[in-house]
Amino acid sequence: MNKRSAFFISDGTGITAETLGNSLLTQFDGIHFEMLTLPYVDTLEKAIKVAEQIDAATRADGAAAIVFDTIVNPEIREIISKSNGYKIDVFETFLKPLEHELQLHSSYSVGKSHAINETRRYKERIASVNFALDNDDGGRIQQYGKADVILIGVSRCGKTPTCLYMALQFGVRAANYPLTIDDLEAPGIPEALMAHSQKLFGLTIDPFHLAAIRNERRPNSRYASLEQCEFEVREVEKRFIQLGIQSINTTHFSVEEIATRIMANAGLVRRAV
Amino acid sequence: MNKRSAFFISDGTGITAETLGNSLLTQFDGIHFEMLTLPYVDTLEKAIKVAEQIDAATRADGAAAIVFDTIVNPEIREIISKSNGYKIDVFETFLKPLEHELQLHSSYSVGKSHAINETRRYKERIASVNFALDNDDGGRIQQYGKADVILIGVSRCGKTPTCLYMALQFGVRAANYPLTIDDLEAPGIPEALMAHSQKLFGLTIDPFHLAAIRNERRPNSRYASLEQCEFEVREVEKRFIQLGIQSINTTHFSVEEIATRIMANAGLVRRAV
Repeated sequence: MNKRSAFFISDGTGITAETLGNSLLTQFDGIHFEMLTLPYVDTLEKAIKVAEQIDAATRADGAAAIVFDTIVNPEIREIISKSNGYKIDVFETFLKPLEHELQLHSSYSVGKSHAINETRRYKERIASVNFALDNDDGGRIQQYGKADVILIGVSRCGKTPTCLYMALQFGVRAANYPLTIDDLEAPGIPEALMAHSQKLFGLTIDPFHLAAIRNERRPNSRYASLEQCEFEVREVEKRFIQLGIQSINTTHFSVEEIATRIMANAGLVRRAV
Repeated sequence: MNKRSAFFISDGTGITAETLGNSLLTQFDGIHFEMLTLPYVDTLEKAIKVAEQIDAATRADGAAAIVFDTIVNPEIREIISKSNGYKIDVFETFLKPLEHELQLHSSYSVGKSHAINETRRYKERIASVNFALDNDDGGRIQQYGKADVILIGVSRCGKTPTCLYMALQFGVRAANYPLTIDDLEAPGIPEALMAHSQKLFGLTIDPFHLAAIRNERRPNSRYASLEQCEFEVREVEKRFIQLGIQSINTTHFSVEEIATRIMANAGLVRRAV
């Protein structure tokens, strides 16, 4: 497959350049992109080194390296713009037309994109991460009153990373409760959950996929057997339907996708953003 | 302050539109943006509703709502484009010139941006989240051999959320160890840490800020007193310098910023991305 270098460059975290560049480049199937994120390029010295890196990659590939940048400082941007890459200057592209539409000059200050409301946002996130950790794996059901959402599903279906992602990204208080074999051999779901039925959201998973994940943790155990996984998933899905609990199948989704779908489907609103 | 509505719309997670839109709009100081992310707009019916929402916001504000979209489906994009917002079509803007540069048509398929390497990436992240949870708060020092980085610092300086963010975002194995009063009243740092001194990365924090955070958790305790916080921070920073441990001050940074700075400064490479 064709190889091509791609750089995501910023004088801040580089998250915007990387997120945008990544979603654009994955639209091109025939090329393998060697992607490199270079954050905090905030001095002329660093910029010169980065420009050299771009030139070297261009020479090695025999084709211009693709460069996405979100650099605010004009001198640094100028140095990068003189490299031999194919440059996509994100701020340049959009800020000028936005200034015109908003009839306002942009502040264009380094790191500005994360400055607003940062303290409040940080606090909400920390509180949400602590909440997710305290309420992981059915830890403290007495705190469910404070939860925005309670994820339920079988062991190893993706509850914990989803809760943590929701906490970090959206500031949402997400608890989770694993439905164990004991729970699934009884009818319905535990009373502690039924008391908060409006907050429940189900995760399910393909039993083959689940067995593979469990086998990595406890090889050749009953817990990891396909039979057991099939039983648990069938019982869980039955309950989701019986009790009208919304759910999604996590098998083919990334953590971001699971989390954003839950936010959308459950009508959850992010805190302090 | 001037108010203006802003929409981030996608037939996928909406993360790209939101990340880009957010970092552009925060460059404009004089306007308060009411931001709304609408992910999974993947049917004509949903698109029509969204277009109505945009029109309603435009009428209410008396100025065009700003609309960032990353919609792949042309029919859905067409409906949104006919709304009365000020539209910034992210894919349209960049994919055409990229196709020309790469001499290749883009696949333009819904949700494509997250499909590649997803399974491997998902597994790495889950493994990293589990690692961060197992190795939170000095949990299991015997696993430090497997860590990519070990964050050290006083209690409540931001270690846990940073480790989890690094795990989720970069697939990095990040452990953390809180330097307690006992540790700080002895010279140096615990032997278990010294054995992995190359992996240590310090977090520090402004003592006033620390006291405020601790007071929320344990009001009026010695733990939360400014005197205690000043002592701990001073002792921790002294050790970072003595032992040549790189560190950053978390006081004014978001979790993303702390995590990306550690990645850059410690020369860490993300896994499976």
